[in-house]
Amino acid sequence: MTGWITNAWYVIGWDHEIDRTPLARTICGVPMMAYRKLDRSVVAMRDACPHRMLPLSMGIREGDSIRCKYHGLKLGPDGVAEEMPLKSDRVNTRICAETFAVAERHRFVWVWIGDKALADPDLIPDLWPCSAPDWAFDGGYYHVAADYRLMIDNLMDLTHETHVHSGSIGQPELLEAPIEAHVEGNRAYVSRWMPGVDAPPFWRGALKKDGPVDRWQICEFIPPAAVMIDVGVAPVGAGATLAKHDQGVRGMVVDFMTPESETTMHYFWGMARSFDIDDVGFTARFKSQQGGVFAEDKEILEAQQRSILANPGMRLNAYNIDQGGVRARQIIDRLIRSQAPQAEAAE
Amino acid sequence: MTGWITNAWYVIGWDHEIDRTPLARTICGVPMMAYRKLDRSVVAMRDACPHRMLPLSMGIREGDSIRCKYHGLKLGPDGVAEEMPLKSDRVNTRICAETFAVAERHRFVWVWIGDKALADPDLIPDLWPCSAPDWAFDGGYYHVAADYRLMIDNLMDLTHETHVHSGSIGQPELLEAPIEAHVEGNRAYVSRWMPGVDAPPFWRGALKKDGPVDRWQICEFIPPAAVMIDVGVAPVGAGATLAKHDQGVRGMVVDFMTPESETTMHYFWGMARSFDIDDVGFTARFKSQQGGVFAEDKEILEAQQRSILANPGMRLNAYNIDQGGVRARQIIDRLIRSQAPQAEAAE
Amino acid sequence: MTGWITNAWYVIGWDHEIDRTPLARTICGVPMMAYRKLDRSVVAMRDACPHRMLPLSMGIREGDSIRCKYHGLKLGPDGVAEEMPLKSDRVNTRICAETFAVAERHRFVWVWIGDKALADPDLIPDLWPCSAPDWAFDGGYYHVAADYRLMIDNLMDLTHETHVHSGSIGQPELLEAPIEAHVEGNRAYVSRWMPGVDAPPFWRGALKKDGPVDRWQICEFIPPAAVMIDVGVAPVGAGATLAKHDQGVRGMVVDFMTPESETTMHYFWGMARSFDIDDVGFTARFKSQQGGVFAEDKEILEAQQRSILANPGMRLNAYNIDQGGVRARQIIDRLIRSQAPQAEAAE
Repeated sequence: MTGWITNAWYVIGWDHEIDRTPLARTICGVPMMAYRKLDRSVVAMRDACPHRMLPLSMGIREGDSIRCKYHGLKLGPDGVAEEMPLKSDRVNTRICAETFAVAERHRFVWVWIGDKALADPDLIPDLWPCSAPDWAFDGGYYHVAADYRLMIDNLMDLTHETHVHSGSIGQPELLEAPIEAHVEGNRAYVSRWMPGVDAPPFWRGALKKDGPVDRWQICEFIPPAAVMIDVGVAPVGAGATLAKHDQGVRGMVVDFMTPESETTMHYFWGMARSFDIDDVGFTARFKSQQGGVFAEDKEILEAQQRSILANPGMRLNAYNIDQGGVRARQIIDRLIRSQAPQAEAAE
Repeated sequence: MTGWITNAWYVIGWDHEIDRTPLARTICGVPMMAYRKLDRSVVAMRDACPHRMLPLSMGIREGDSIRCKYHGLKLGPDGVAEEMPLKSDRVNTRICAETFAVAERHRFVWVWIGDKALADPDLIPDLWPCSAPDWAFDGGYYHVAADYRLMIDNLMDLTHETHVHSGSIGQPELLEAPIEAHVEGNRAYVSRWMPGVDAPPFWRGALKKDGPVDRWQICEFIPPAAVMIDVGVAPVGAGATLAKHDQGVRGMVVDFMTPESETTMHYFWGMARSFDIDDVGFTARFKSQQGGVFAEDKEILEAQQRSILANPGMRLNAYNIDQGGVRARQIIDRLIRSQAPQAEAAE
Repeated sequence: MTGWITNAWYVIGWDHEIDRTPLARTICGVPMMAYRKLDRSVVAMRDACPHRMLPLSMGIREGDSIRCKYHGLKLGPDGVAEEMPLKSDRVNTRICAETFAVAERHRFVWVWIGDKALADPDLIPDLWPCSAPDWAFDGGYYHVAADYRLMIDNLMDLTHETHVHSGSIGQPELLEAPIEAHVEGNRAYVSRWMPGVDAPPFWRGALKKDGPVDRWQICEFIPPAAVMIDVGVAPVGAGATLAKHDQGVRGMVVDFMTPESETTMHYFWGMARSFDIDDVGFTARFKSQQGGVFAEDKEILEAQQRSILANPGMRLNAYNIDQGGVRARQIIDRLIRSQAPQAEAAE
């Protein structure tokens, strides 16, 4: 049994990763490749020629079509044969590569791996901070040799910051503030409100102001595999609350974990912010720092995955701090059982 | 189910690869080693000492015998024990390593992997151009991580040259000329006649003459795993036909694909020619060029094999151009089912 | 079926390998880690946090406790939770990591992998030369990709020295002297007496005397996985016998083979001697030489293991010289069947 929701959109790549030359990536066990047509829209096909199964990503693009590198079978962007290996042969249009529904939104390219008839772009996880006009967003990509759900667990519980990221964003207060976890429809939330604390260096610099702050962290799981974390600080007394907090400086960590196999994932990470949005130097420095932090998580998760495989008689246990991950996994399990398209539209 | 014909001869190595020091190679899943006796004849044994299974290829040859590196059990070239680890122990001649029938012909050393009583050297695939007096022959060896039948498919359909070898021997006319495929006994043939074409650079240089030429390619599959390709050009009007064509310049591509495992092979490749046969510089330059061309095939086939394993729900499809490979595989399947020695003698 | 005796002590490391920082090693398939408490006694736990299974060996020691690097669960040296990830959470003392009985003796740290109630330190294999007052002992560690029983076979038959170690300790007389093998309780012995031989260079140098010597080798297998070899020479006529031989120079090769998996082991090797015991330069030179000899064995055994896996239809055979290994394996098989603690105390 896999841990994959099939009728759902998954990120196959950053918008800038996919261009005219095909990009090969295996999504939920399906080898795929994607490239842009001349009108910049994206095509995604199974990465195997219907003729002799050579990866189509090794092929040559001709206009909007792709020609296999082995025998030259030419397929249109709809996957249908346009030219046989022997030019004189009549084209058999029943020959075609499997294609996948594709959409581009919030700086990412998305593919739908289930029933194509259900591939409604409105079901794309609403990662609004990545594309909102008054926000700046950037991030990166890591291949991580771990079950994608381990990263969801990781992001839905930020107490690990204290230990894993002690050199950067960890703060002892994280271990003292109580957390609140709940589910709304198909989304899981964990929030933590730290009133009147000393701002850590990063937030102090962002706020550009001395004095005690209220700090918040609100983790949100969106199926099939997104986590957004609303983070920031506001001066004490500015009126910020868990529900509304635009009085100080605010960021949104946005992460998407696309399963590659049962034990590997494509990890797309980034951060949006609503302050200093035109400071491209800030963006670049922050992406570099965040890349270092997530590399620490990659190391931890890969060790965790190896340990899971090496200790078949043990299982993961959940404590209070894991409420967010537990709820996210319950949502995943429920959606896998029902295999209905997850109802983003219903929010 | 394996794709191997067991009662058949397979190439274990080039004649020059096998010398006094044992060469280890796994043939159709059987670890073997081979070395030459003082009279230059070749011995092939299972590459595991009958005592404690250390590879015999790590041993020391003594005269025509081999002494295991671990405890010094000494085996004669017939595989039978000649000396026990403790010299004082009586030799137990029931101790023996499995040996394999060996023959040397056409510049290759052959082993028989089935019933030894059936190992008739007359059943060795008749790769005559490798040893004919008025022909020059040389070639090389590649280990290829792909099912050996993928290379047979490759060689029985030369339209791939246009795409895979576009920088060297590809020619658009290859895609326009009709092909003819047929079977004679246990052999499959694909031929292509290109009358009145412009000779590609290689053949122009070989012919040393201007003007339009007739060009031919005749692929011949010989079980269990050989493909010979009769190639060349003759001036238009010289009288060359598909059946007889010694009027111009002629070569024979000779390839043997020995299975190592279900997904790996030993690829022995070469080319014989009946022109400029004493020009050793030509031979060396041509071997180097041909090595580059077959390295392109190796890259393609290994990607194809990985794709086959990554897409278990798909299967290879055959179009018109694949008639040769389809017929070759039909012959292989038939011989596997019958597991009778393939009747080279019947040709 | 495994070849492991579970109710037994296995070496997890040299005494000097285990310190305050955890050392990770898999013993008989169980991932473990070990570290020293402030009082220098050793703790061994399953190398997986009971919370989310991150290897505890990645954690931080705090006093005698270990804090997991992921979420900070703190476990005492008894494996029991002392602090939850969220400091405010009540400690659940049912949370604990599996611990293993540990003992330190004869320069090694030992773990018991079976029923902890049976873990009697008196059952530790009596490797007395490693800790006897008038003996000097040193050695090293190799990871060897082979079934641990192949090393027991190797050490219980020293005729292989002639072939594998021909450049160092091999001597043709080894192949001529008769061997005597027998079993006493749970121990197997092979002895060889070489009267009036020329001492090989190493022993000549140790003896510091010319003239013919009597040479002995007495291999002793002690379950679950130790081999000690009593070796040395004495001047002819000095009165040395197989039973008593302190008249010349005497050493004890001491080796312990801890299974890691079915096909890999931790190989702890060393040599004790009762002569020149204060000559630390001798100790260092000898350890270096012995390391080279055992590296030759590692190469042989890993090739043997690969061959065993590549030739599933074959099996190891035993000749006269293998009597010691055969008896050792019979003892192992018997103890596995009974799975009673092996009765070292009974000796």
